[in-house]
Amino acid sequence: MPDHAASSPPAEEGGSGIGPSPGRSLRGSADQGVRALYRRVRAATEALAAPLSAEDQTVQSMPDASPAKWHRAHTTWFFETFVLASRLPGYRVFDPAFGYVFNSYYEAVGPRHPRPSRGMLSRPGIEAVAAYRAHVDAAMERLLDGGDEDVAALVVMGLHHEQQHQELLLTDIKHAFSLSPLNPAYAPPPARGPVGKPASPGWWQASGGIHAVGHAPSGDPMDFAFDNEGPRHEVLLRDHAMADRPVSNGEFRAFMEDGGYRRPEFWLSEGWALAQASAWEAPGYWRRDGRDWVVHTLHGLLPVRDDEPVLHVSFFEAAAYAEWAGMRLPTEFEWEVAAQARAGTGLPAGGPCEHPRPLVPGLRQDVWEWTASPYSAYPGYRPAPGALGEYNGKFMINQMVLRGRSCATAEGHERPTYRNFFPPGARWQFSGFRLAAGA
Amino acid sequence: MPDHAASSPPAEEGGSGIGPSPGRSLRGSADQGVRALYRRVRAATEALAAPLSAEDQTVQSMPDASPAKWHRAHTTWFFETFVLASRLPGYRVFDPAFGYVFNSYYEAVGPRHPRPSRGMLSRPGIEAVAAYRAHVDAAMERLLDGGDEDVAALVVMGLHHEQQHQELLLTDIKHAFSLSPLNPAYAPPPARGPVGKPASPGWWQASGGIHAVGHAPSGDPMDFAFDNEGPRHEVLLRDHAMADRPVSNGEFRAFMEDGGYRRPEFWLSEGWALAQASAWEAPGYWRRDGRDWVVHTLHGLLPVRDDEPVLHVSFFEAAAYAEWAGMRLPTEFEWEVAAQARAGTGLPAGGPCEHPRPLVPGLRQDVWEWTASPYSAYPGYRPAPGALGEYNGKFMINQMVLRGRSCATAEGHERPTYRNFFPPGARWQFSGFRLAAGA
Amino acid sequence: MPDHAASSPPAEEGGSGIGPSPGRSLRGSADQGVRALYRRVRAATEALAAPLSAEDQTVQSMPDASPAKWHRAHTTWFFETFVLASRLPGYRVFDPAFGYVFNSYYEAVGPRHPRPSRGMLSRPGIEAVAAYRAHVDAAMERLLDGGDEDVAALVVMGLHHEQQHQELLLTDIKHAFSLSPLNPAYAPPPARGPVGKPASPGWWQASGGIHAVGHAPSGDPMDFAFDNEGPRHEVLLRDHAMADRPVSNGEFRAFMEDGGYRRPEFWLSEGWALAQASAWEAPGYWRRDGRDWVVHTLHGLLPVRDDEPVLHVSFFEAAAYAEWAGMRLPTEFEWEVAAQARAGTGLPAGGPCEHPRPLVPGLRQDVWEWTASPYSAYPGYRPAPGALGEYNGKFMINQMVLRGRSCATAEGHERPTYRNFFPPGARWQFSGFRLAAGA
Amino acid sequence: MPDHAASSPPAEEGGSGIGPSPGRSLRGSADQGVRALYRRVRAATEALAAPLSAEDQTVQSMPDASPAKWHRAHTTWFFETFVLASRLPGYRVFDPAFGYVFNSYYEAVGPRHPRPSRGMLSRPGIEAVAAYRAHVDAAMERLLDGGDEDVAALVVMGLHHEQQHQELLLTDIKHAFSLSPLNPAYAPPPARGPVGKPASPGWWQASGGIHAVGHAPSGDPMDFAFDNEGPRHEVLLRDHAMADRPVSNGEFRAFMEDGGYRRPEFWLSEGWALAQASAWEAPGYWRRDGRDWVVHTLHGLLPVRDDEPVLHVSFFEAAAYAEWAGMRLPTEFEWEVAAQARAGTGLPAGGPCEHPRPLVPGLRQDVWEWTASPYSAYPGYRPAPGALGEYNGKFMINQMVLRGRSCATAEGHERPTYRNFFPPGARWQFSGFRLAAGA
Repeated sequence: MPDHAASSPPAEEGGSGIGPSPGRSLRGSADQGVRALYRRVRAATEALAAPLSAEDQTVQSMPDASPAKWHRAHTTWFFETFVLASRLPGYRVFDPAFGYVFNSYYEAVGPRHPRPSRGMLSRPGIEAVAAYRAHVDAAMERLLDGGDEDVAALVVMGLHHEQQHQELLLTDIKHAFSLSPLNPAYAPPPARGPVGKPASPGWWQASGGIHAVGHAPSGDPMDFAFDNEGPRHEVLLRDHAMADRPVSNGEFRAFMEDGGYRRPEFWLSEGWALAQASAWEAPGYWRRDGRDWVVHTLHGLLPVRDDEPVLHVSFFEAAAYAEWAGMRLPTEFEWEVAAQARAGTGLPAGGPCEHPRPLVPGLRQDVWEWTASPYSAYPGYRPAPGALGEYNGKFMINQMVLRGRSCATAEGHERPTYRNFFPPGARWQFSGFRLAAGA
Repeated sequence: MPDHAASSPPAEEGGSGIGPSPGRSLRGSADQGVRALYRRVRAATEALAAPLSAEDQTVQSMPDASPAKWHRAHTTWFFETFVLASRLPGYRVFDPAFGYVFNSYYEAVGPRHPRPSRGMLSRPGIEAVAAYRAHVDAAMERLLDGGDEDVAALVVMGLHHEQQHQELLLTDIKHAFSLSPLNPAYAPPPARGPVGKPASPGWWQASGGIHAVGHAPSGDPMDFAFDNEGPRHEVLLRDHAMADRPVSNGEFRAFMEDGGYRRPEFWLSEGWALAQASAWEAPGYWRRDGRDWVVHTLHGLLPVRDDEPVLHVSFFEAAAYAEWAGMRLPTEFEWEVAAQARAGTGLPAGGPCEHPRPLVPGLRQDVWEWTASPYSAYPGYRPAPGALGEYNGKFMINQMVLRGRSCATAEGHERPTYRNFFPPGARWQFSGFRLAAGA
Repeated sequence: MPDHAASSPPAEEGGSGIGPSPGRSLRGSADQGVRALYRRVRAATEALAAPLSAEDQTVQSMPDASPAKWHRAHTTWFFETFVLASRLPGYRVFDPAFGYVFNSYYEAVGPRHPRPSRGMLSRPGIEAVAAYRAHVDAAMERLLDGGDEDVAALVVMGLHHEQQHQELLLTDIKHAFSLSPLNPAYAPPPARGPVGKPASPGWWQASGGIHAVGHAPSGDPMDFAFDNEGPRHEVLLRDHAMADRPVSNGEFRAFMEDGGYRRPEFWLSEGWALAQASAWEAPGYWRRDGRDWVVHTLHGLLPVRDDEPVLHVSFFEAAAYAEWAGMRLPTEFEWEVAAQARAGTGLPAGGPCEHPRPLVPGLRQDVWEWTASPYSAYPGYRPAPGALGEYNGKFMINQMVLRGRSCATAEGHERPTYRNFFPPGARWQFSGFRLAAGA
Repeated sequence: MPDHAASSPPAEEGGSGIGPSPGRSLRGSADQGVRALYRRVRAATEALAAPLSAEDQTVQSMPDASPAKWHRAHTTWFFETFVLASRLPGYRVFDPAFGYVFNSYYEAVGPRHPRPSRGMLSRPGIEAVAAYRAHVDAAMERLLDGGDEDVAALVVMGLHHEQQHQELLLTDIKHAFSLSPLNPAYAPPPARGPVGKPASPGWWQASGGIHAVGHAPSGDPMDFAFDNEGPRHEVLLRDHAMADRPVSNGEFRAFMEDGGYRRPEFWLSEGWALAQASAWEAPGYWRRDGRDWVVHTLHGLLPVRDDEPVLHVSFFEAAAYAEWAGMRLPTEFEWEVAAQARAGTGLPAGGPCEHPRPLVPGLRQDVWEWTASPYSAYPGYRPAPGALGEYNGKFMINQMVLRGRSCATAEGHERPTYRNFFPPGARWQFSGFRLAAGA
């Protein structure tokens, strides 16, 4: 199970955004050096956790989710274990017991606290976690005085890892709050305009042939990519068309009203079984409100807006919708080639999610998009040696690739080659989808 | 599953006691009136929770246990729902949502939050719970100005209920801390003398015949008993002998060393299956330490002392030990008759548990003692009408009666007719046992 | 889980009875000697299995049930292991592997095939089981030539054990057939008269005081009782009244129509949880048929008759009905004393079940009757030494006592001191109940 | 969950083969017409079931497996439902209840008996199943008199479906027998030569580039392929090498002896968790025999031979072995292109499994081979309309493709484009793997 992906909307999106975000951008900060980047990313994590009480930061609502204070400590343990322990002479480990408590899944580092029991950890408390972060930050400052290029690459990796956990911190607290009978909100609701009526999607026509995909390292430590994004290699695509925006709530309602959740002919067998066992009848977090629907968000319960992209659907629901619509999901390579073609104008993905903006031309519409591609290794892929090699490769089974980014992804964390991945039944991420057509 | 039983050792037991306790005594305070009693019991709950951080008060380590702040709020909801709502004109409910959140199991009061999800409740936080308690306490003060006898009986019941939760608060946090790799302690360890060598137990010989057991109401509201302790009625006992103290750790070790946990011939079938499935090889909270044993306590990890009563054993272990010893457990009526006979000199039960004292003559040795009696209704028993009738009767199946009190029981909460009850596999209570012999 | 209790209606009940039964009576055959008894009981088992195909005898519909051929082989293994192996010099074990396969739960005899996997045993097939029975029967004939009194007691015990399995063979195949979409019948349906309207039950008034209960051995090997029926001892009863017949289907329907399955106030907490989780809305094997009910029986699907005793209810349903009716269940000792008082005129229990007769005065009305008594040891009870000591005592936890006999019990297998026992949630036995009143 | 794939070794492999097989070949029989084919395939199923008793044919050892008589009836139901019902005027359904009982997973055909309960079906018995088969066969004979081409295509599909179930019948009874403490054998063990020492595998070098894969229909009804094998399309391969035979038991032992089952660094995370939870320490059916290993086969327990291909390994074990060896598994397209290149000389796969022949040059070495390819739709894939469209497409998630055939596959059932698929944790199929190297 991956422990990855996270962050909040950019500053310019206004005061209603989910937490402070200037420091969550990596991309634009190469000129300021790794040290400035380190400070800003680490501060952004603390800003995201700031609205949460000690109790909020302690609960774990399901084995797949983690407590907020665990995210704060685990990202810190990552720097302590993979950077400071070997690179900063004389570094004193903050608390040897933390190695057991805050290791997520690295077998090579030793035994670890069972994931489903993270919510049992009343200790260390949030003040102790803050002290842990301060201790590691102070040591990192000393280390970064050295300016070692090799260290820089490791630190940038650690910061991308922390940005992933920034997004998870938000998805996990959203899930936890969804179970509370008190309906807590993480942030006040944004001001919103009237519901628009989005035009039908446009279609990007794409010609088949051999295309290069994947990340090729440039040597610049700031030009980071995870190991699963390479090696860069050629793929053979076919002629196809791809929608220029994700499917909207209004469109998904038409599927629901046509019996989408009651008609097995649209569903994969395993998806149908899961939907029946879980009594799914709408996307995640939707709740009946008389004859209409409301949706649990980080801003509390809000009406479902037809002009926003549908969110919190599993791969199974995305695939069933596509089958119902007589189309299909794009492959991850179709998506990447389209993203590269539009690199100057933003990703093909996008759209508002938690503080939603209408699906109108010219705007980003940020949701993670399920693709038709199982998560597999690229030709020639080799994991890094040692514990860091456990980062991506060992999850390459029974997961589907998502592309794009969400409204909760840190600014600059995304790139056209980015491969997010989750099991096909997962719904607690900010996941939607777009359609494709043609072989 | 009962939500019952609780509290700490009396003040005179010294500074190493588990939390402040003067206010936890009900018995001696009849002359001071219900109001004084109310104040002291309520304050005692807060004193017990005081050493716990917000995070500590939030975790729930298993479905049978509850978070500390939930105990604080549920006992408050009890007064709000069963006393204030109907007896104090103009009472304003603190938060209507709390009725759903803090109802433990009263079907008649309406739907309620699922018990296994109490640990998901980050809200209300500990400050909100404190405000809730203050709100209810202020209203109770107004109500108690009235001096209504009828109200007095209800309030005394609510206070006994709260004392039960005081003990549960301690047993539950003990269990939660036992799962932490950081081994937290609730209180600093007490000063202890050298380990003594307890003499063999003495035996109380008892003659058979008809005896009266159970509680007969006196009309004094301070003379409280739960409904399951009555009606008073006659039972037929046989000649028998009963040990004058519980089985000690040292004695239990002899059972272990003789293969007690590996020899099915001593065990009830269901107990053997549970012991195998749970890989029991010692009492609860015991952990191997080289070739010896240490034990998780509210004072942290301590060596196992042979001169203390064995604790945290299930009924199954108690019954297996008795079989191994060629004896049996006493029935609850044998126990009660013995307790009545010794009423002036303390209960037959007792012995130190968390801050242990040696098993020497004249000292109390407080542990809840498993009896051979399934938990059933007394002849003529009728539950109270309405929701409060759900307090005891509906649990009268698949549970065994424990008698006595533990070191965590509030002073004065115990009485010779008191019937505690738990499923035979439960080990997280302060439970031990003594032996009996003869038909 | 006990492996006990079994058999069919007496011959005089006519051709519609469940299987041949003359040989299933033990009581009347003391004059004919143990050998005659052995032949008849053993033959009765084979007669009960005769209507079942090889496939029918192989399936296991739940862990609590066993395949019919397993019952046939296990009862044979009992004689081989506990009689022949030690008493017949030169006896050759039929197949050493059978010791593993057909041991039910005797820990002292060694490891055994897991109970839930008995339905995996395609081998040995029914012919091999028949050969096993013939091999053991031939050896038993040789042994019985000796006329050893000690052997006689063991053999009679083995035959009572086999009679218990005769009843289980019927309850287990009834359960298995209930899961088949083809609704198979074990036997053709009996001719039945019109549905009668039973009068209200009469009430037996009983005075309190000390009574003797339990079995006292007479020294006659034919005067058999299981060890859990003794020692004979005194109990103290109170004045009370007991219904002279079990509750009928018609009476139980009134409970259902008054919301009995939807009103938690009548239920024990654990029973309510089980009823909700299992979606109980009627007794076991009842199925909706439009606005009425039909019931799965060994004769196939039949209409529910209001003049028959209600069957296949759990202890929880019996207790809820009693609560609804403002009464209670009798204790096992009240039941036994009543049975002794009426010893010349048949047990107090009884009534038709699978080939039902109306609830009219003078007729037996055979159903196992739940009592209010948890299954515990009698004062002075000691299990037999060795493996046979595992027969009853190790199940004395979390079970309730049933008294009487059912229509599937072998003639003569019952007696007033007989203690049947099952967990309170069990419904697949022929279990009903009668009411009592007064403390 | 697929219900697919099956059959036995060719006739020329001698009398020790698993059941009769001449009738199990489809390929060579085009000239004899569909009717002859029908007769031979149907007879082959009966021949495979012939060694099994009624009891053997009834048991179901896990939810993924089915009873042998269920396979016999389900394949018959397939012809009744998808061919006779719509194509043979006046056809009388044998038993309307069978539609519920023998539907495997076709949602469009209506509700069905739950898969995990197939082992509860004592009825219909094996004679009734034989009558069902005869009834359908007679009707099919009448239908085939018509000589309709359209019907021919349907019938050939039904026969391929039946051949899949022939293999499943063998894998499922093998699993059931593996659970029996009596170690039954399906067939007597074959005569075997001494264990050879296989040479290191040779390596087939393959050049990258665009290749066509998948099945293109020829119009000949005998030229059958399942819908998931098409459409034929182009793929881009890279330069690589592929072993000329599967990994052997001897080679796999080296992995085991190097700690393969104890070193998480070789394993996918989900595979490691499964291996730990299941306590895997060797391939499926291997059992310790002192310091060596024996293996449960259809011929009973046999020594593990180092010169045979390793069998009954999951995808996870295959992938871990490849990681340990510093190589990888081939993709399904690399495999198919290699198979096409060697079409005249047999598939690249193969080798003896249940009646094993040494891994020496020139011999087929039949095992299903896990590939690195998740099971996905080919570009342009559309399932057939109606119920038959549920055959393959709805399983395209969380499964891996296997290529080749096994010793239990019907002669002629295989082809280079054939795509078998199972979840990565499955071990009860005849599954092995070969290595590849290069990007």
